[in-house]
Amino acid sequence: MTSAPRKIIIDTDPGQDDAIAILLALASPELEVLGLTAVAGNVPLALTERNARRICELAGRSDLAVHAGAARPLSRKLVTAEAVHGRTGLDGPDLPEPVMPLRAAHAADFIVETLRREEPGAVTLCTLGPLTNVALAFAKAPEIVPRVREIVTMGGGAFEGGNTTPVAEFNILVDPHAAKAVLGAAGAAGVPVTMMPLDVTHKALTRADRIAAIRDLRTPVGDAVVALLEFFERFDEAKYGTDGGPLHDPCVIAWLLAPGIFGGGLVNVEIETGSELTMGQTVVDWWGVTTRPRNVRFIREIDADAFFSLLTERIGRLPREAGPSHP
Amino acid sequence: MTSAPRKIIIDTDPGQDDAIAILLALASPELEVLGLTAVAGNVPLALTERNARRICELAGRSDLAVHAGAARPLSRKLVTAEAVHGRTGLDGPDLPEPVMPLRAAHAADFIVETLRREEPGAVTLCTLGPLTNVALAFAKAPEIVPRVREIVTMGGGAFEGGNTTPVAEFNILVDPHAAKAVLGAAGAAGVPVTMMPLDVTHKALTRADRIAAIRDLRTPVGDAVVALLEFFERFDEAKYGTDGGPLHDPCVIAWLLAPGIFGGGLVNVEIETGSELTMGQTVVDWWGVTTRPRNVRFIREIDADAFFSLLTERIGRLPREAGPSHP
Amino acid sequence: MTSAPRKIIIDTDPGQDDAIAILLALASPELEVLGLTAVAGNVPLALTERNARRICELAGRSDLAVHAGAARPLSRKLVTAEAVHGRTGLDGPDLPEPVMPLRAAHAADFIVETLRREEPGAVTLCTLGPLTNVALAFAKAPEIVPRVREIVTMGGGAFEGGNTTPVAEFNILVDPHAAKAVLGAAGAAGVPVTMMPLDVTHKALTRADRIAAIRDLRTPVGDAVVALLEFFERFDEAKYGTDGGPLHDPCVIAWLLAPGIFGGGLVNVEIETGSELTMGQTVVDWWGVTTRPRNVRFIREIDADAFFSLLTERIGRLPREAGPSHP
Amino acid sequence: MTSAPRKIIIDTDPGQDDAIAILLALASPELEVLGLTAVAGNVPLALTERNARRICELAGRSDLAVHAGAARPLSRKLVTAEAVHGRTGLDGPDLPEPVMPLRAAHAADFIVETLRREEPGAVTLCTLGPLTNVALAFAKAPEIVPRVREIVTMGGGAFEGGNTTPVAEFNILVDPHAAKAVLGAAGAAGVPVTMMPLDVTHKALTRADRIAAIRDLRTPVGDAVVALLEFFERFDEAKYGTDGGPLHDPCVIAWLLAPGIFGGGLVNVEIETGSELTMGQTVVDWWGVTTRPRNVRFIREIDADAFFSLLTERIGRLPREAGPSHP
Repeated sequence: MTSAPRKIIIDTDPGQDDAIAILLALASPELEVLGLTAVAGNVPLALTERNARRICELAGRSDLAVHAGAARPLSRKLVTAEAVHGRTGLDGPDLPEPVMPLRAAHAADFIVETLRREEPGAVTLCTLGPLTNVALAFAKAPEIVPRVREIVTMGGGAFEGGNTTPVAEFNILVDPHAAKAVLGAAGAAGVPVTMMPLDVTHKALTRADRIAAIRDLRTPVGDAVVALLEFFERFDEAKYGTDGGPLHDPCVIAWLLAPGIFGGGLVNVEIETGSELTMGQTVVDWWGVTTRPRNVRFIREIDADAFFSLLTERIGRLPREAGPSHP
Repeated sequence: MTSAPRKIIIDTDPGQDDAIAILLALASPELEVLGLTAVAGNVPLALTERNARRICELAGRSDLAVHAGAARPLSRKLVTAEAVHGRTGLDGPDLPEPVMPLRAAHAADFIVETLRREEPGAVTLCTLGPLTNVALAFAKAPEIVPRVREIVTMGGGAFEGGNTTPVAEFNILVDPHAAKAVLGAAGAAGVPVTMMPLDVTHKALTRADRIAAIRDLRTPVGDAVVALLEFFERFDEAKYGTDGGPLHDPCVIAWLLAPGIFGGGLVNVEIETGSELTMGQTVVDWWGVTTRPRNVRFIREIDADAFFSLLTERIGRLPREAGPSHP
Repeated sequence: MTSAPRKIIIDTDPGQDDAIAILLALASPELEVLGLTAVAGNVPLALTERNARRICELAGRSDLAVHAGAARPLSRKLVTAEAVHGRTGLDGPDLPEPVMPLRAAHAADFIVETLRREEPGAVTLCTLGPLTNVALAFAKAPEIVPRVREIVTMGGGAFEGGNTTPVAEFNILVDPHAAKAVLGAAGAAGVPVTMMPLDVTHKALTRADRIAAIRDLRTPVGDAVVALLEFFERFDEAKYGTDGGPLHDPCVIAWLLAPGIFGGGLVNVEIETGSELTMGQTVVDWWGVTTRPRNVRFIREIDADAFFSLLTERIGRLPREAGPSHP
Repeated sequence: MTSAPRKIIIDTDPGQDDAIAILLALASPELEVLGLTAVAGNVPLALTERNARRICELAGRSDLAVHAGAARPLSRKLVTAEAVHGRTGLDGPDLPEPVMPLRAAHAADFIVETLRREEPGAVTLCTLGPLTNVALAFAKAPEIVPRVREIVTMGGGAFEGGNTTPVAEFNILVDPHAAKAVLGAAGAAGVPVTMMPLDVTHKALTRADRIAAIRDLRTPVGDAVVALLEFFERFDEAKYGTDGGPLHDPCVIAWLLAPGIFGGGLVNVEIETGSELTMGQTVVDWWGVTTRPRNVRFIREIDADAFFSLLTERIGRLPREAGPSHP
């Protein structure tokens, strides 16, 4: 590979699909993971930061910086999703307790310091959970916002509705004020935001044949991924009657690796924070009926076969040999 | 026909698609139209009541009772839709000024008096516009609510989003407080509500071959319908790039004639009236993620070919011979 | 008296203070009460229309037109105030069941027909309860709005806060959408609105010496008024620790008789209908910090001694002799 | 003095009244100011942190730790108040540019670190501006919340209404989500919150005789205070027609020195964040009409003469001699 890998920070609340997104990133030489920041979301912070470390160790990357961040949303009470993810957030495989350390700095400070240290336009923020950590970082140090290359975020939904309330997706619902603040700051600074909503993730289904392909890798990481997927898909299969569940978070990483497999449009997205009935909804002006600014690349389409082929191929590379990005 | 026709009141804001819905009802012996009530919506009331009479005369039914109702929503300012319907609301064909009289009573009073006079459970309300008239009738005479057989209403949207704001459909947005009041009153009285949202009407597209079939009727009413459709479809064709536009309101009448061509579910629907961003949204709990009552039969599917066949066949019957329901 | 009496309609939900307001109006030759319209509020409609007739009979005015109106608010569920008014709404005196008839027409229709019949600018609407009836009348017949001379309404509060929630006064809270609609229609038509909020009514306290003055009338109506006041004041005395309770509704009538005893300002008033926390609040821009239109004469001051002197003197005139306004 | 001084952090957006509050604290041996944290509010952050240092130097306390914090609110756009405070925020006296350094750490981190370092229950947070810094600190490190001894905050209003919108006070309006988050966190942790709303501060008027008493000190600090007051009072004198303006922020410090000169009650206070019309309102259940928890000591009364006597006496002590709290 001739070009330098793209530098990313993964903000995450693992979560089985977070775990697979992290593995996909760690397996990909096109990306350099500068660190992981954990946030409360799918399960409480004490579990998400631990799960993030577990996944690093599974990938053979105990050298990675993992920072714990916000234990609760900016302004609302924390809602979690154990019904989907199990009590631990990583129910499914039997992953050992992590031994690699949690770094001391708060996740928001790690984001701030990294963006200050790296070149402007060098760092992409990949967010897989509620946006509390990013909002805290932007609130503490607004001068870092224009230094962000891109924000790629799993969250929201338009024509798929919500997955937690009838109209709200989980990540946005948990901290709608953070989502609103991050979109507002990014928009003001001209930072591109790419959103992976339910509209696209519900097309990335963990079908039996797709899981089988991963099982056929016959590697420890592949086996763990299969166990994660098989636990994770149960909830949505039962709810929607589909073959497989939507593999939300890995879409964020796949966008960086293969944007050509996705389709979407640059549109206005606003976050509802006023009404309890529609709290956390992403109001997406897909048809351009308002004059509001086009602030989000909103993804609706995916070549799901290509996505799972990519995922399977990359999972097969793990654990990676040590390379230049993690000496 | 052995059974007595079903008695309906059509509340309407014509509107080309209203016009075709009215024609479909007047052409159908299964239905007895007790009267038409006009409301401000697509165009102001002075036009909608006149358009309603125009359509009656086109169908040869100048005997019908047409009543004017609310000139504005309960609590918000009137919004109209001339961009869709043209300046008159019936742009397209060249229909003469009506000569049949407008009845003196207010639409809401006609609804109240009719429901008081007819047997309990005899009258179905078919609403094609904002729900202001029905809300006024229910507010004036709450005792009529349990006497309603069914409310079939064009309005709302879930997985199609809105057609006026990103999340709100026109009829609900114009008078969300009326919609909320009608759903609330119907729910409390146990009156069934069937909603024809954009989710279904966007599947009833006026394709060229479907319009051609109506043109082939080679009748004056058929020609007028073609002219209405060809004007009406322009807006949505331009917006959505579809072949044809969605034929919203006739779905309400078709439901009474051929419910088997529709598919949907009994779910909770709430109306957003609190937030300007999401004002007028129908929040539809399709997946049953809340414990709110299942108060609306929400239609999502239609056999569009069967629908247009039915429509074409019935339009071909007009003008009808005078029969027992209009001596 | 040389000038013709001022024509008023009293819209009311008696309520002890409503009763005294009605008596004050009926005792005053400066006013011609065209009719009373009852609305659900302090107690349900079935009680308020009966109570209105009871008061007419107490005043010797069984000739008056009393019409029942809305049994519930436009869009919300009815809330009542038996804790303040007792189970009947007129707890206190022992008033017989009324024998005078309830008129057939709905209150809203009576308002509409009266405004159509009388000269433009002749009729003042005095509202003592939730504004549902007036909103229905304005919604049914918007052309009557500019014919209204003035709307004088008991409702709202600014620097006194609310009396039902921390920020909402009862009449507005019960039907905030009606209040918003009435203010909107009046503002658009240039009809003056005078609001008697808690800011002024809490200064019209039924002190013991003031009640004693009425008792000293030693008339049957005076005795009934004393019984009404003594029951009514208990709630507010217990809540606020004041000597006497606030005599809300009679301020509306007193404004027509002696505006000089009141003080206030022409300011913007908006009704909160969006948030449950502040639902029904009258947001009063007393200090002119916004650019919103000055749509309400908001009364804050009263010469309470003059007010009670007027009230006592007038109550002493009842029952009135039949005069030209009620042959 | 026998007891140890009370340890406080002052979070502030100077602002003339902030300046006087800071001087009052620095002049009072009962208090040990651990540091000042600046926040955007009255003027932008670049000015408030500089003004905070200016005031420290005026008081002879260039040793103090001053930290800059949030440059904008959590979720809304920054609103400032140059109309009240002048372009610099400290218009009035001619104070030199500060030479003492700004500390490197972010204000929120200083709050976090200080609360972690000091004994539980030792540190009182005195907030004179929007609550963004405190909300950030609590969001980053929720475990510090129960270590706070008390939060004393200038903000809000009930029976005085607002000073920025008709219902919202400036500090809360600027960052209502921060205010809601801080009240929520304090309530959950059982930390006492004392609120100094407009209800009390509007009774602490800078009357001419009170300013004269400070002028009579004939000290440089006294002269600066007079210049601050004379500039500051203009806005409110012009708006309200009062003799003098309300001296908001020093009430926070006076509460710690002489709580007996204040009167108030323990009541429920909620922050409106849903509706734009009432955004930032403190909904105060003074009369206990809800069942919501009593989470705030809401101050309504002050002995203004005692307050100004205290202020004058303390200002006269400045600049202080170096003492044990600032070696």
